[in-house]
Amino acid sequence: MESKFSSEELSAMSPKEFRAIVRRGEYTRTTADACCGYAQADLVVIPEEMAFEFLLFCLRNPRPCPVLDVTEAGDPHPRLVAPEADLRTDVPKYRVYKDGKLVDEPSDVTSYWRDDLVSFVIGCSFSFVWLLRAENVKFRPHETGVYATNINCVPAGRFHGRLAVSGHFAQDTVRPVQVSSRYPAFHGPPVHIGDPAIIGIKDIYKPNYSTSPEPVEPQKPDEVPMFWACGVTPQVVALDSKIPFMITHYPAHMFVTDRRIEEFACL
Amino acid sequence: MESKFSSEELSAMSPKEFRAIVRRGEYTRTTADACCGYAQADLVVIPEEMAFEFLLFCLRNPRPCPVLDVTEAGDPHPRLVAPEADLRTDVPKYRVYKDGKLVDEPSDVTSYWRDDLVSFVIGCSFSFVWLLRAENVKFRPHETGVYATNINCVPAGRFHGRLAVSGHFAQDTVRPVQVSSRYPAFHGPPVHIGDPAIIGIKDIYKPNYSTSPEPVEPQKPDEVPMFWACGVTPQVVALDSKIPFMITHYPAHMFVTDRRIEEFACL
Repeated sequence: MESKFSSEELSAMSPKEFRAIVRRGEYTRTTADACCGYAQADLVVIPEEMAFEFLLFCLRNPRPCPVLDVTEAGDPHPRLVAPEADLRTDVPKYRVYKDGKLVDEPSDVTSYWRDDLVSFVIGCSFSFVWLLRAENVKFRPHETGVYATNINCVPAGRFHGRLAVSGHFAQDTVRPVQVSSRYPAFHGPPVHIGDPAIIGIKDIYKPNYSTSPEPVEPQKPDEVPMFWACGVTPQVVALDSKIPFMITHYPAHMFVTDRRIEEFACL
Repeated sequence: MESKFSSEELSAMSPKEFRAIVRRGEYTRTTADACCGYAQADLVVIPEEMAFEFLLFCLRNPRPCPVLDVTEAGDPHPRLVAPEADLRTDVPKYRVYKDGKLVDEPSDVTSYWRDDLVSFVIGCSFSFVWLLRAENVKFRPHETGVYATNINCVPAGRFHGRLAVSGHFAQDTVRPVQVSSRYPAFHGPPVHIGDPAIIGIKDIYKPNYSTSPEPVEPQKPDEVPMFWACGVTPQVVALDSKIPFMITHYPAHMFVTDRRIEEFACL
Protein backbone atom coordinates (compact mmCIF):
# COMPACT_ATOMS: atom_id res chain seq x y z
CA MET A 1 0.00 0.00 0.00
CA GLU A 2 1.35 3.41 -0.99
CA SER A 3 1.36 6.10 1.68
CA LYS A 4 -1.12 8.86 1.05
CA PHE A 5 1.51 11.34 2.25
CA SER A 6 4.49 12.37 0.14
CA SER A 7 8.03 12.47 1.57
CA GLU A 8 7.82 16.26 1.49
CA GLU A 9 4.55 16.33 3.41
CA LEU A 10 5.88 13.90 6.03
CA SER A 11 9.09 15.86 6.39
CA ALA A 12 7.27 19.19 6.94
CA MET A 13 4.90 17.85 9.63
CA SER A 14 5.32 18.77 13.29
CA PRO A 15 5.72 15.79 15.63
CA LYS A 16 2.28 16.53 17.08
CA GLU A 17 0.63 16.51 13.62
CA PHE A 18 2.47 13.36 12.59
CA ARG A 19 1.62 11.47 15.79
CA ALA A 20 -2.06 12.45 15.43
CA ILE A 21 -2.13 10.85 11.98
CA VAL A 22 -0.41 7.74 13.30
CA ARG A 23 -2.80 7.62 16.27
CA ARG A 24 -5.80 7.64 13.92
CA GLY A 25 -4.29 4.67 12.07
CA GLU A 26 -3.73 6.69 8.88
CA TYR A 27 0.01 6.04 8.66
CA THR A 28 1.67 2.68 9.40
CA ARG A 29 4.93 2.95 7.42
CA THR A 30 8.58 3.90 8.02
CA THR A 31 9.32 7.22 9.71
CA ALA A 32 12.57 7.78 7.76
CA ASP A 33 11.07 10.92 6.18
CA ALA A 34 8.92 12.15 9.08
CA CYS A 35 9.29 15.50 10.90
CA CYS A 36 12.60 16.87 9.66
CA GLY A 37 14.85 18.01 12.50
CA TYR A 38 13.10 16.15 15.32
CA ALA A 39 14.63 13.30 17.30
CA GLN A 40 13.18 9.87 16.58
CA ALA A 41 13.25 6.99 19.02
CA ASP A 42 13.14 3.24 19.40
CA LEU A 43 10.67 1.86 21.91
CA VAL A 44 11.02 -0.96 24.44
CA VAL A 45 8.15 -1.72 26.82
CA ILE A 46 8.59 -4.34 29.55
CA PRO A 47 7.03 -5.25 32.92
CA GLU A 48 8.24 -3.21 35.91
CA GLU A 49 9.61 -6.39 37.47
CA MET A 50 12.37 -6.42 34.79
CA ALA A 51 12.83 -2.64 34.52
CA PHE A 52 15.95 -2.27 36.67
CA GLU A 53 17.72 -5.11 34.86
CA PHE A 54 16.89 -3.60 31.50
CA LEU A 55 17.92 -0.08 32.52
CA LEU A 56 21.20 -1.60 33.69
CA PHE A 57 21.51 -3.36 30.33
CA CYS A 58 21.05 0.01 28.59
CA LEU A 59 23.65 1.64 30.80
CA ARG A 60 26.16 -1.11 30.09
CA ASN A 61 25.43 -0.93 26.37
CA PRO A 62 25.09 2.78 25.69
CA ARG A 63 25.83 2.50 21.95
CA PRO A 64 22.78 0.35 21.07
CA CYS A 65 20.62 1.63 23.96
CA PRO A 66 21.01 5.37 24.64
CA VAL A 67 18.03 6.03 26.91
CA LEU A 68 16.18 9.32 26.31
CA ASP A 69 13.22 8.73 28.63
CA VAL A 70 11.74 6.09 30.93
CA THR A 71 8.11 6.20 32.04
CA GLU A 72 6.61 5.34 35.41
CA ALA A 73 4.88 1.92 35.45
CA GLY A 74 1.59 2.02 33.52
CA ASP A 75 2.12 5.57 32.27
CA PRO A 76 2.03 5.69 28.45
CA HIS A 77 3.24 9.31 28.29
CA PRO A 78 6.97 9.99 27.88
CA ARG A 79 7.12 13.08 30.13
CA LEU A 80 10.60 14.21 29.14
CA VAL A 81 10.54 13.91 25.37
CA ALA A 82 6.85 14.22 24.36
CA PRO A 83 4.45 14.61 27.31
CA GLU A 84 1.32 14.77 25.11
CA ALA A 85 2.18 11.64 23.16
CA ASP A 86 0.72 8.20 23.83
CA LEU A 87 3.19 5.35 23.40
CA ARG A 88 0.33 2.84 22.95
CA THR A 89 -0.89 4.42 19.72
CA ASP A 90 1.68 6.88 18.36
CA VAL A 91 4.18 4.48 16.80
CA PRO A 92 3.23 3.46 13.21
CA LYS A 93 3.82 -0.25 13.81
CA TYR A 94 4.79 -2.36 16.83
CA ARG A 95 6.13 -5.78 17.58
CA VAL A 96 5.03 -7.93 20.51
CA TYR A 97 7.38 -10.59 21.89
CA LYS A 98 6.35 -13.36 24.31
CA ASP A 99 8.77 -15.90 25.80
CA GLY A 100 11.40 -15.07 23.20
CA LYS A 101 9.02 -15.33 20.23
CA LEU A 102 7.56 -12.65 17.99
CA VAL A 103 3.78 -13.05 18.36
CA ASP A 104 2.21 -9.95 16.80
CA GLU A 105 2.89 -6.86 14.67
CA PRO A 106 -0.01 -4.51 15.41
CA SER A 107 -0.29 -0.78 14.66
CA ASP A 108 -1.73 -0.09 18.14
CA VAL A 109 -0.88 -1.84 21.42
CA THR A 110 -3.75 -0.57 23.59
CA SER A 111 -5.12 -4.11 23.92
CA TYR A 112 -1.73 -5.31 25.23
CA TRP A 113 -1.34 -2.49 27.76
CA ARG A 114 -0.97 -3.29 31.48
CA ASP A 115 -0.57 -1.21 34.63
CA ASP A 116 2.89 -2.62 35.27
CA LEU A 117 4.47 -1.72 31.91
CA VAL A 118 7.50 0.57 31.86
CA SER A 119 8.46 2.21 28.55
CA PHE A 120 12.01 2.96 27.48
CA VAL A 121 12.47 5.58 24.77
CA ILE A 122 15.82 5.02 23.04
CA GLY A 123 17.50 7.41 20.59
CA CYS A 124 17.44 6.39 16.92
CA SER A 125 20.07 6.91 14.24
CA PHE A 126 17.47 8.37 11.85
CA SER A 127 18.07 11.52 13.86
CA PHE A 128 21.68 12.11 12.81
CA VAL A 129 20.97 10.81 9.30
CA TRP A 130 18.86 13.97 8.89
CA LEU A 131 21.92 16.04 9.70
CA LEU A 132 24.10 14.22 7.17
CA ARG A 133 21.43 14.63 4.52
CA ALA A 134 21.21 18.34 5.25
CA GLU A 135 24.98 18.60 4.73
CA ASN A 136 24.85 16.67 1.44
CA VAL A 137 27.24 14.05 2.83
CA LYS A 138 27.63 11.20 0.34
CA PHE A 139 26.10 8.65 2.65
CA ARG A 140 23.17 6.26 2.25
CA PRO A 141 21.60 4.13 4.96
CA HIS A 142 20.35 0.65 4.03
CA GLU A 143 16.83 1.45 5.04
CA THR A 144 15.74 -2.04 4.14
CA GLY A 145 16.98 -3.87 7.21
CA VAL A 146 19.11 -4.44 10.25
CA TYR A 147 21.93 -6.93 10.88
CA ALA A 148 22.70 -9.15 13.87
CA THR A 149 26.47 -9.18 14.52
CA ASN A 150 28.83 -11.58 16.28
CA ILE A 151 29.44 -8.94 18.98
CA ASN A 152 27.91 -9.79 22.35
CA CYS A 153 26.38 -7.04 24.45
CA VAL A 154 27.48 -6.72 28.10
CA PRO A 155 24.78 -8.75 29.93
CA ALA A 156 22.65 -7.47 32.82
CA GLY A 157 20.46 -9.90 34.78
CA ARG A 158 18.27 -11.81 32.33
CA PHE A 159 19.20 -9.57 29.40
CA HIS A 160 21.91 -10.83 27.09
CA GLY A 161 22.30 -11.14 23.34
CA ARG A 162 24.00 -9.96 20.20
CA LEU A 163 24.47 -6.40 19.05
CA ALA A 164 22.28 -5.36 16.12
CA VAL A 165 23.62 -2.76 13.70
CA SER A 166 22.29 -0.58 10.93
CA GLY A 167 24.23 -0.62 7.65
CA HIS A 168 25.26 2.33 5.51
CA PHE A 169 27.38 2.97 2.42
CA ALA A 170 29.49 6.12 2.49
CA GLN A 171 31.80 7.86 0.04
CA ASP A 172 32.83 10.20 2.82
CA THR A 173 33.46 8.21 6.01
CA VAL A 174 35.01 11.05 8.02
CA ARG A 175 32.08 13.45 8.25
CA PRO A 176 29.64 10.72 9.38
CA VAL A 177 32.07 9.78 12.19
CA GLN A 178 32.34 13.42 13.25
CA VAL A 179 28.63 14.18 13.12
CA SER A 180 27.48 10.95 14.82
CA SER A 181 30.11 11.34 17.55
CA ARG A 182 28.34 14.54 18.61
CA TYR A 183 25.21 12.48 19.35
CA PRO A 184 25.74 9.70 21.90
CA ALA A 185 21.95 9.95 22.35
CA PHE A 186 21.48 8.58 18.81
CA HIS A 187 24.00 5.70 19.08
CA GLY A 188 27.12 7.88 18.82
CA PRO A 189 29.99 6.97 16.47
CA PRO A 190 30.00 3.83 14.28
CA VAL A 191 30.91 0.48 15.82
CA HIS A 192 32.62 -0.69 12.64
CA ILE A 193 33.87 0.65 9.30
CA GLY A 194 34.86 -1.71 6.49
CA ASP A 195 34.57 -5.47 5.89
CA PRO A 196 31.18 -6.64 7.20
CA ALA A 197 32.56 -10.16 7.82
CA ILE A 198 34.69 -8.85 10.71
CA ILE A 199 31.54 -8.25 12.76
CA GLY A 200 29.87 -11.45 11.58
CA ILE A 201 27.75 -10.13 8.70
CA LYS A 202 28.00 -12.83 6.04
CA ASP A 203 25.94 -11.17 3.32
CA ILE A 204 25.43 -7.44 3.43
CA TYR A 205 22.58 -7.79 0.95
CA LYS A 206 20.63 -10.04 3.31
CA PRO A 207 19.79 -8.16 6.50
CA ASN A 208 18.70 -10.42 9.39
CA TYR A 209 15.75 -8.16 10.13
CA SER A 210 14.21 -6.98 6.90
CA THR A 211 11.95 -3.98 7.06
CA SER A 212 11.20 -3.52 3.38
CA PRO A 213 10.87 -5.86 0.40
CA GLU A 214 13.30 -3.72 -1.61
CA PRO A 215 16.87 -5.06 -1.79
CA VAL A 216 19.86 -2.99 -0.68
CA GLU A 217 21.24 -1.12 -3.70
CA PRO A 218 24.69 -2.64 -4.37
CA GLN A 219 27.88 -1.06 -3.01
CA LYS A 220 29.64 1.19 -5.53
CA PRO A 221 33.43 1.06 -6.05
CA ASP A 222 33.96 4.34 -4.16
CA GLU A 223 31.76 3.40 -1.20
CA VAL A 224 32.75 1.95 2.19
CA PRO A 225 30.37 0.06 4.50
CA MET A 226 29.77 1.72 7.89
CA PHE A 227 27.84 0.20 10.78
CA TRP A 228 26.18 1.83 13.77
CA ALA A 229 24.79 0.16 16.87
CA CYS A 230 21.04 -0.09 16.44
CA GLY A 231 18.01 0.23 18.70
CA VAL A 232 16.72 -3.08 17.33
CA THR A 233 19.28 -4.69 19.69
CA PRO A 234 16.70 -5.11 22.51
CA GLN A 235 14.59 -7.16 20.07
CA VAL A 236 17.53 -9.46 19.34
CA VAL A 237 18.00 -9.65 23.12
CA ALA A 238 14.30 -10.48 23.63
CA LEU A 239 14.79 -13.44 21.29
CA ASP A 240 18.26 -14.46 22.52
CA SER A 241 17.30 -14.17 26.23
CA LYS A 242 13.74 -15.50 25.84
CA ILE A 243 12.30 -12.47 27.65
CA PRO A 244 8.72 -13.27 28.85
CA PHE A 245 7.09 -10.08 27.53
CA MET A 246 8.27 -7.11 25.50
CA ILE A 247 6.60 -4.62 23.19
CA THR A 248 8.84 -2.71 20.76
CA HIS A 249 8.57 -0.49 17.71
CA TYR A 250 8.71 -2.31 14.35
CA PRO A 251 12.17 -1.65 12.83
CA ALA A 252 12.33 1.71 10.99
CA HIS A 253 8.84 2.60 12.28
CA MET A 254 9.87 4.93 15.05
CA PHE A 255 8.39 7.14 17.73
CA VAL A 256 8.80 10.83 16.85
CA THR A 257 9.58 13.02 19.89
CA ASP A 258 8.99 16.74 20.44
CA ARG A 259 12.67 17.37 20.99
CA ARG A 260 14.92 18.88 18.33
CA ILE A 261 17.88 16.77 17.27
CA GLU A 262 20.27 19.60 18.17
CA GLU A 263 19.09 19.57 21.80
CA PHE A 264 20.98 16.29 22.19
CA ALA A 265 24.33 17.41 20.76
CA CYS A 266 27.07 16.72 23.28
CA LEU A 267 29.32 19.45 21.97
CA MET B 1 47.12 15.22 60.21
CA GLU B 2 49.47 15.76 57.30
CA SER B 3 49.46 13.08 54.60
CA LYS B 4 52.63 11.02 54.52
CA PHE B 5 52.48 11.14 50.73
CA SER B 6 53.41 14.24 48.73
CA SER B 7 51.22 15.56 45.90
CA GLU B 8 53.84 14.31 43.44
CA GLU B 9 53.85 10.82 44.93
CA LEU B 10 50.04 10.64 44.90
CA SER B 11 49.89 11.91 41.34
CA ALA B 12 52.38 9.32 40.08
CA MET B 13 50.65 6.31 41.68
CA SER B 14 48.70 3.80 39.60
CA PRO B 15 45.06 3.37 40.67
CA LYS B 16 45.89 -0.13 41.93
CA GLU B 17 48.75 1.16 44.12
CA PHE B 18 46.68 4.05 45.42
CA ARG B 19 43.67 1.87 46.26
CA ALA B 20 45.93 -0.61 48.10
CA ILE B 21 47.16 2.22 50.36
CA VAL B 22 43.62 3.40 50.96
CA ARG B 23 42.50 -0.18 51.65
CA ARG B 24 45.17 -0.54 54.32
CA GLY B 25 43.86 2.63 55.99
CA GLU B 26 47.05 4.57 55.23
CA TYR B 27 45.37 7.39 53.32
CA THR B 28 42.05 9.01 54.30
CA ARG B 29 42.31 12.42 52.64
CA THR B 30 41.17 14.13 49.42
CA THR B 31 41.95 12.44 46.12
CA ALA B 32 42.38 15.74 44.24
CA ASP B 33 46.03 14.88 43.53
CA ALA B 34 45.75 11.10 43.17
CA CYS B 35 46.61 9.06 40.05
CA CYS B 36 47.09 11.66 37.34
CA GLY B 37 45.15 10.83 34.18
CA TYR B 38 42.74 8.32 35.72
CA ALA B 39 38.99 8.86 36.06
CA GLN B 40 37.75 9.44 39.61
CA ALA B 41 34.25 8.71 40.77
CA ASP B 42 31.58 9.53 43.31
CA LEU B 43 29.95 6.60 45.06
CA VAL B 44 26.32 5.96 45.97
CA VAL B 45 25.35 2.66 47.63
CA ILE B 46 21.67 1.89 48.29
CA PRO B 47 19.46 -1.17 48.86
CA GLU B 48 18.38 -3.04 45.73
CA GLU B 49 14.77 -2.22 46.53
CA MET B 50 15.47 1.44 45.60
CA ALA B 51 17.94 0.77 42.79
CA PHE B 52 15.60 1.22 39.82
CA GLU B 53 14.28 4.50 41.20
CA PHE B 54 17.78 5.80 41.75
CA LEU B 55 19.01 4.69 38.34
CA LEU B 56 16.02 6.51 36.88
CA PHE B 57 16.96 9.57 38.95
CA CYS B 58 20.47 9.43 37.46
CA LEU B 59 19.12 9.11 33.96
CA ARG B 60 16.82 12.10 34.44
CA ASN B 61 19.66 14.12 35.98
CA PRO B 62 22.67 13.22 33.85
CA ARG B 63 24.65 16.37 34.75
CA PRO B 64 24.98 15.61 38.49
CA CYS B 65 24.72 11.82 38.10
CA PRO B 66 26.59 10.45 35.06
CA VAL B 67 26.66 6.72 35.82
CA LEU B 68 29.91 4.91 34.94
CA ASP B 69 29.12 1.55 36.55
CA VAL B 70 26.44 -0.19 38.61
CA THR B 71 27.15 -3.39 40.54
CA GLU B 72 24.94 -6.42 41.06
CA ALA B 73 23.32 -6.52 44.53
CA GLY B 74 25.88 -7.39 47.21
CA ASP B 75 28.83 -7.29 44.81
CA PRO B 76 31.45 -4.76 46.00
CA HIS B 77 33.47 -4.97 42.77
CA PRO B 78 32.78 -2.45 39.99
CA ARG B 79 33.27 -4.83 37.04
CA LEU B 80 33.34 -2.20 34.30
CA VAL B 81 35.64 0.44 35.75
CA ALA B 82 37.90 -1.41 38.26
CA PRO B 83 37.13 -5.13 38.61
CA GLU B 84 39.84 -5.73 41.24
CA ALA B 85 38.74 -2.87 43.47
CA ASP B 86 36.59 -3.24 46.57
CA LEU B 87 34.07 -0.44 47.06
CA ARG B 88 33.81 -1.23 50.81
CA THR B 89 37.42 -0.30 51.53
CA ASP B 90 38.97 1.56 48.59
CA VAL B 91 37.46 5.02 49.13
CA PRO B 92 39.50 7.17 51.58
CA LYS B 93 36.47 8.28 53.56
CA TYR B 94 32.73 7.51 53.42
CA ARG B 95 29.48 8.94 54.67
CA VAL B 96 26.57 6.85 55.94
CA TYR B 97 23.05 8.28 55.81
CA LYS B 98 20.03 6.79 57.62
CA ASP B 99 16.47 8.13 57.32
CA GLY B 100 17.74 11.39 55.88
CA LYS B 101 20.41 11.94 58.52
CA LEU B 102 24.18 11.70 58.35
CA VAL B 103 25.09 9.08 60.97
CA ASP B 104 28.73 8.15 60.34
CA GLU B 105 31.90 9.13 58.45
CA PRO B 106 34.05 5.97 58.48
CA SER B 107 37.08 5.16 56.32
CA ASP B 108 35.81 1.61 55.70
CA VAL B 109 32.20 0.45 55.30
CA THR B 110 32.69 -3.30 55.61
CA SER B 111 30.65 -3.35 58.83
CA TYR B 112 27.74 -1.65 57.04
CA TRP B 113 27.78 -3.98 54.05
CA ARG B 114 24.70 -6.04 53.17
CA ASP B 115 23.85 -8.58 50.49
CA ASP B 116 21.20 -6.32 49.01
CA LEU B 117 23.39 -3.25 48.43
CA VAL B 118 23.79 -1.92 44.88
CA SER B 119 26.67 0.47 44.18
CA PHE B 120 26.53 3.31 41.68
CA VAL B 121 29.85 4.68 40.43
CA ILE B 122 29.35 8.24 39.18
CA GLY B 123 31.89 10.30 37.21
CA CYS B 124 33.66 13.09 39.13
CA SER B 125 34.78 16.52 37.91
CA PHE B 126 38.26 15.98 39.35
CA SER B 127 38.78 14.04 36.14
CA PHE B 128 38.49 16.97 33.74
CA VAL B 129 40.20 19.30 36.21
CA TRP B 130 43.35 17.24 35.51
CA LEU B 131 43.02 18.05 31.84
CA LEU B 132 42.65 21.77 32.47
CA ARG B 133 45.68 21.70 34.76
CA ALA B 134 47.70 19.93 32.10
CA GLU B 135 46.79 22.68 29.64
CA ASN B 136 47.73 25.45 32.10
CA VAL B 137 44.22 26.88 31.90
CA LYS B 138 43.84 29.71 34.41
CA PHE B 139 41.22 27.92 36.44
CA ARG B 140 41.03 26.97 40.12
CA PRO B 141 38.44 24.76 41.76
CA HIS B 142 37.22 25.63 45.26
CA GLU B 143 38.42 22.37 46.67
CA THR B 144 37.14 23.35 50.09
CA GLY B 145 33.46 22.64 49.58
CA VAL B 146 30.30 22.10 47.60
CA TYR B 147 27.19 24.28 47.29
CA ALA B 148 23.49 23.43 47.38
CA THR B 149 21.63 25.47 44.73
CA ASN B 150 18.00 26.55 44.30
CA ILE B 151 17.74 24.29 41.22
CA ASN B 152 15.55 21.23 41.74
CA CYS B 153 16.55 17.94 40.16
CA VAL B 154 13.96 16.05 38.08
CA PRO B 155 12.45 13.65 40.65
CA ALA B 156 12.19 9.86 40.24
CA GLY B 157 10.15 7.83 42.71
CA ARG B 158 11.31 8.66 46.25
CA PHE B 159 14.36 10.59 45.02
CA HIS B 160 14.02 14.36 44.85
CA GLY B 161 16.12 17.27 46.00
CA ARG B 162 18.31 20.19 45.09
CA LEU B 163 21.22 20.19 42.69
CA ALA B 164 24.66 20.44 44.34
CA VAL B 165 27.45 22.19 42.43
CA SER B 166 31.18 22.55 42.66
CA GLY B 167 32.57 26.10 42.47
CA HIS B 168 35.53 27.33 40.44
CA PHE B 169 37.17 30.66 39.61
CA ALA B 170 38.40 31.03 36.03
CA GLN B 171 40.28 33.70 34.13
CA ASP B 172 39.60 31.75 30.94
CA THR B 173 35.96 30.60 30.90
CA VAL B 174 35.93 29.36 27.30
CA ARG B 175 38.45 26.52 27.47
CA PRO B 176 36.83 24.98 30.58
CA VAL B 177 33.46 24.94 28.76
CA GLN B 178 35.05 23.29 25.73
CA VAL B 179 37.02 20.68 27.67
CA SER B 180 34.24 19.75 30.10
CA SER B 181 31.71 19.50 27.26
CA ARG B 182 33.78 16.61 25.88
CA TYR B 183 33.12 14.68 29.10
CA PRO B 184 29.43 14.14 29.86
CA ALA B 185 30.75 11.25 32.01
CA PHE B 186 32.33 13.79 34.38
CA HIS B 187 29.32 16.16 34.65
CA GLY B 188 29.73 17.73 31.19
CA PRO B 189 29.60 21.51 30.69
CA PRO B 190 28.99 23.97 33.55
CA VAL B 191 25.43 24.56 34.76
CA HIS B 192 26.11 28.23 35.48
CA ILE B 193 28.70 30.93 34.79
CA GLY B 194 28.64 34.24 36.68
CA ASP B 195 26.66 35.61 39.63
CA PRO B 196 26.30 32.83 42.24
CA ALA B 197 23.07 34.40 43.59
CA ILE B 198 21.24 33.41 40.37
CA ILE B 199 21.48 29.75 41.36
CA GLY B 200 20.78 30.43 45.03
CA ILE B 201 24.32 30.61 46.40
CA LYS B 202 24.21 33.44 48.94
CA ASP B 203 27.85 33.44 49.99
CA ILE B 204 30.43 31.87 47.71
CA TYR B 205 32.89 31.81 50.61
CA LYS B 206 30.60 29.58 52.69
CA PRO B 207 30.06 26.27 50.92
CA ASN B 208 27.10 24.26 52.28
CA TYR B 209 29.20 21.12 52.43
CA SER B 210 32.66 21.97 53.62
CA THR B 211 35.39 19.43 52.97
CA SER B 212 38.39 21.33 54.32
CA PRO B 213 38.92 23.89 57.08
CA GLU B 214 40.74 26.20 54.66
CA PRO B 215 38.64 29.09 53.32
CA VAL B 216 38.14 29.67 49.59
CA GLU B 217 40.82 32.06 48.34
CA PRO B 218 38.95 35.27 47.36
CA GLN B 219 37.90 35.95 43.78
CA LYS B 220 40.35 38.14 41.88
CA PRO B 221 39.18 41.03 39.66
CA ASP B 222 39.91 39.08 36.45
CA GLU B 223 38.18 35.88 37.60
CA VAL B 224 34.64 34.67 36.88
CA PRO B 225 32.78 32.09 39.01
CA MET B 226 31.87 28.87 37.18
CA PHE B 227 29.71 26.09 38.56
CA TRP B 228 29.45 22.42 37.57
CA ALA B 229 26.83 19.89 38.65
CA CYS B 230 28.37 17.79 41.41
CA GLY B 231 28.23 14.14 42.44
CA VAL B 232 27.44 15.24 45.99
CA THR B 233 23.88 15.81 44.68
CA PRO B 234 22.73 12.30 45.76
CA GLN B 235 23.77 13.20 49.32
CA VAL B 236 21.64 16.36 49.22
CA VAL B 237 18.87 14.14 47.84
CA ALA B 238 19.38 11.60 50.67
CA LEU B 239 18.78 14.43 53.14
CA ASP B 240 16.00 16.20 51.19
CA SER B 241 14.13 12.94 50.44
CA LYS B 242 14.85 11.26 53.79
CA ILE B 243 16.20 8.13 52.08
CA PRO B 244 16.22 5.20 54.59
CA PHE B 245 19.79 4.06 53.87
CA MET B 246 22.64 5.31 51.67
CA ILE B 247 26.40 5.02 51.78
CA THR B 248 28.41 7.58 49.78
CA HIS B 249 31.96 8.84 49.41
CA TYR B 250 32.91 11.79 51.62
CA PRO B 251 33.03 14.90 49.39
CA ALA B 252 36.40 15.24 47.56
CA HIS B 253 37.44 11.77 48.80
CA MET B 254 36.77 9.82 45.65
CA PHE B 255 37.01 6.34 44.24
CA VAL B 256 39.85 6.08 41.70
CA THR B 257 39.00 3.84 38.72
CA ASP B 258 41.31 1.92 36.36
CA ARG B 259 39.98 3.79 33.36
CA ARG B 260 41.87 6.62 31.70
CA ILE B 261 40.04 9.96 31.56
CA GLU B 262 40.42 10.07 27.78
CA GLU B 263 38.47 6.80 27.42
CA PHE B 264 35.35 8.76 28.33
CA ALA B 265 35.77 11.62 25.84
CA CYS B 266 32.62 11.90 23.74
CA LEU B 267 34.42 13.46 20.78
